[in-house]
Amino acid sequence: MNARSPEALVRDTGRRNEAVILNAALEAFGTRGFNGASMRDVAKGAGTSLSNLYNYFPSKSKLLAAVLRHANDELQHRVLRAVEEAGDDAPSQLREAVRAHVGFVVDHQVATLVATNEVRYLEPDDRTALVSHRDATQATFERIIDQGAADGAFRTPYARDAARAILSAVAAIASWYRRDGALSRGQLAEQYARYALALLEGPLPR
Amino acid sequence: MNARSPEALVRDTGRRNEAVILNAALEAFGTRGFNGASMRDVAKGAGTSLSNLYNYFPSKSKLLAAVLRHANDELQHRVLRAVEEAGDDAPSQLREAVRAHVGFVVDHQVATLVATNEVRYLEPDDRTALVSHRDATQATFERIIDQGAADGAFRTPYARDAARAILSAVAAIASWYRRDGALSRGQLAEQYARYALALLEGPLPR
Repeated sequence: MNARSPEALVRDTGRRNEAVILNAALEAFGTRGFNGASMRDVAKGAGTSLSNLYNYFPSKSKLLAAVLRHANDELQHRVLRAVEEAGDDAPSQLREAVRAHVGFVVDHQVATLVATNEVRYLEPDDRTALVSHRDATQATFERIIDQGAADGAFRTPYARDAARAILSAVAAIASWYRRDGALSRGQLAEQYARYALALLEGPLPR
Repeated sequence: MNARSPEALVRDTGRRNEAVILNAALEAFGTRGFNGASMRDVAKGAGTSLSNLYNYFPSKSKLLAAVLRHANDELQHRVLRAVEEAGDDAPSQLREAVRAHVGFVVDHQVATLVATNEVRYLEPDDRTALVSHRDATQATFERIIDQGAADGAFRTPYARDAARAILSAVAAIASWYRRDGALSRGQLAEQYARYALALLEGPLPR
């Protein structure tokens, strides 16, 4: 399981077997959807008993919340690291943030689909927590876009909603990308970074 | 029920009560998801009996297929009409096509979400039919983008995948747009048309 492996979203949580359960849950939710997947499916996928599964997670909804929190943490970590390593200017930061986000979507295609499709099945408190977590990642993009709009690098009159448009297009890659298709992970990242800079009416390479 | 009413997707199919059933199905799938909604829920929502519902649709999956086909037909109809009424040049056609698509998403927010989230639950034949139908709408955008790339109006080096990126961002509007929010339907359409033209590195108004 390395960073490029398709779907080992959770590597270690400090609790024995928890990572195995979370990855099995992701697989079950990805294949059958939240309503179609049962706790029994998850227990079977994790090679454990139903009663042991309930020792870890009191409900299917809590399990979904934990899976999505791990996905969000990984995405946010990658985006923040990419921005830190980029230059100080908004276009460079935006470019690296988009590339990191595309990389996450390709590496964690099922997790991205589950996050898009199943978030509405969380209990209200978990949903609120997850959405605010997700908003934090969006806020990173918004901060960069605000900076670029303020210093004139991004000339779009609609900077305010641009992050959402860009992030939607990037997340949707999960619904069509095929590893054996024509586009490599790197080409795809490059392509979407340019789409984003162009959409923002920012400076383009060459 | 007028064209701007939020969710009367199906107005008349020529078969008595069928429209009522399809709209009730959309409501049920939108609220509970395909796996969470039952044929009983749909019958109740349509004010008919379960046995009468089965007279119209032999399975929940066939019902979903019919709902999504109606949604696709309406979207495709609007986009094609908008393109016909636009000028001959690719930027005008693209602008009007995006505006029409945004209008559809706002008018049929639940149908757009169901189409995005639940299409995977169709039986294989229905899924294939629906995807090829959906691809026809995407092909309209691709044709315009190809024309604009060929005649130099769109300067993006990545014309080939741009339709997908644009359509993903437009469809995702359904997941966050609020009728009582800051943006009117018309402003939203204008904004996304500009995002699309900018992403394509095409000519921008003013």
